[in-house]
Amino acid sequence: MKTNASSKVGLSVNHMSVDCVVLGLSGSTLYVLLIKREMEENGEKVFDYKLPGGLIYTDEDLDNAASRVLQELTGVRNQRMMQFKAFGSRDRISPRDSQWLKDTLHQEIRSLVTIGYVAIGRIGRKLNLHNAGNEVCWVPVNEALKMKLAFDHNTIINEALQATRKHADADPAVLYTLLPHKFTALQLRMLYEFIYNKEIDVRNFKKKMVQLAYIEPLNEYEQGVAHRAARYYRFNRVKYKKSRRGTE
Amino acid sequence: MKTNASSKVGLSVNHMSVDCVVLGLSGSTLYVLLIKREMEENGEKVFDYKLPGGLIYTDEDLDNAASRVLQELTGVRNQRMMQFKAFGSRDRISPRDSQWLKDTLHQEIRSLVTIGYVAIGRIGRKLNLHNAGNEVCWVPVNEALKMKLAFDHNTIINEALQATRKHADADPAVLYTLLPHKFTALQLRMLYEFIYNKEIDVRNFKKKMVQLAYIEPLNEYEQGVAHRAARYYRFNRVKYKKSRRGTE
Repeated sequence: MKTNASSKVGLSVNHMSVDCVVLGLSGSTLYVLLIKREMEENGEKVFDYKLPGGLIYTDEDLDNAASRVLQELTGVRNQRMMQFKAFGSRDRISPRDSQWLKDTLHQEIRSLVTIGYVAIGRIGRKLNLHNAGNEVCWVPVNEALKMKLAFDHNTIINEALQATRKHADADPAVLYTLLPHKFTALQLRMLYEFIYNKEIDVRNFKKKMVQLAYIEPLNEYEQGVAHRAARYYRFNRVKYKKSRRGTE
Repeated sequence: MKTNASSKVGLSVNHMSVDCVVLGLSGSTLYVLLIKREMEENGEKVFDYKLPGGLIYTDEDLDNAASRVLQELTGVRNQRMMQFKAFGSRDRISPRDSQWLKDTLHQEIRSLVTIGYVAIGRIGRKLNLHNAGNEVCWVPVNEALKMKLAFDHNTIINEALQATRKHADADPAVLYTLLPHKFTALQLRMLYEFIYNKEIDVRNFKKKMVQLAYIEPLNEYEQGVAHRAARYYRFNRVKYKKSRRGTE
């Protein structure tokens, strides 16, 4: 490819944003935090969903931008997040996205590179699934991926799950930060199924699980459930670290 | 943090670049491709080194930008690269970097986010360590990291090595793409030492290596070396894939 003066005209000034994939387990379902996006098309009100995201300020650290945007849009504070990928395909802005950017920011944006962040660790407040006051809501990941989300947000969620999987392969403790402090075998298995995107045999899973010294059974059981109450377990970080030393 | 009109003034227009970390093994040393950067300071010529990198065009795919920049600066074509991280700290531009940007691009650049790429796979041509014609050169990674490179390029190289390590943890085949087709036990061990950043016991390593069915000894030996000629090995991808299926 030849570089010449004319090809350099469109050089280098880009709009840049961050988008946050915040995952949360409620019951045995994995949810993702989305924001409702409302707009007018041909005189009619239409809406779809997007990830919490926004443009970054000039001179703002990327990591700070991600925390700021998440807090401004959702109220979630001090959330540990991991940057996982930059998304910069030419076709990530649809005509609807382009219109929405124009309505919202009052400027024409042709190109928008976004840096994807995924929240790792429990979010600080209880999942509120009926958060009707503002436009933030928890949507089951499965359902979110079936919708046509704004921009390339379907791709971003998929890549966030992949990044979490890689992270968990290197350090399984990551999975336990997504679970409540006390969890059932079902919850742990469902989380594995979501993250690894495959069905896991119940009996094999239970067998492997009881062999892990760092998953401790508690003398506590679910309460007020119609089915047989399940036992709670907890993750023992000290034993986990000990078990890891053995494998290194 | 409150959002108000004034904090939005500096919003969103950023310069963006890609930087490529191209690693290559020659003998038993891991090299990184760097570019000499010359400039004048107080009337004197000074120089330092930077990674091959450059601004991306508006409307250009990130991945395409990385390939284009690498090819324009170094002549390396069709190199498979993996995006590994975006770098956007406020302090990544020193006064010298700022001056260099101004001299080179004839514009003031306050903020520059760069997307890091690492080349995975053998580069297409033989490593030429005496590439004096242009300003591109191979520098041993160890030495590169001891220099004060341009921008935050020391950090970027370190993070590229970390990303390669994670990648190799998930799929050890990655390491063999960095090696020549025929390699010695020493070369493989040195590569492990570089990527995992620790010394590896020679005898244990040899013992483990011969147990791996996918590393095949050849009936070929080094030629024209002063020490005892070492045997060559090669990586058998079919056997490797078979061995992986067993563990899943």
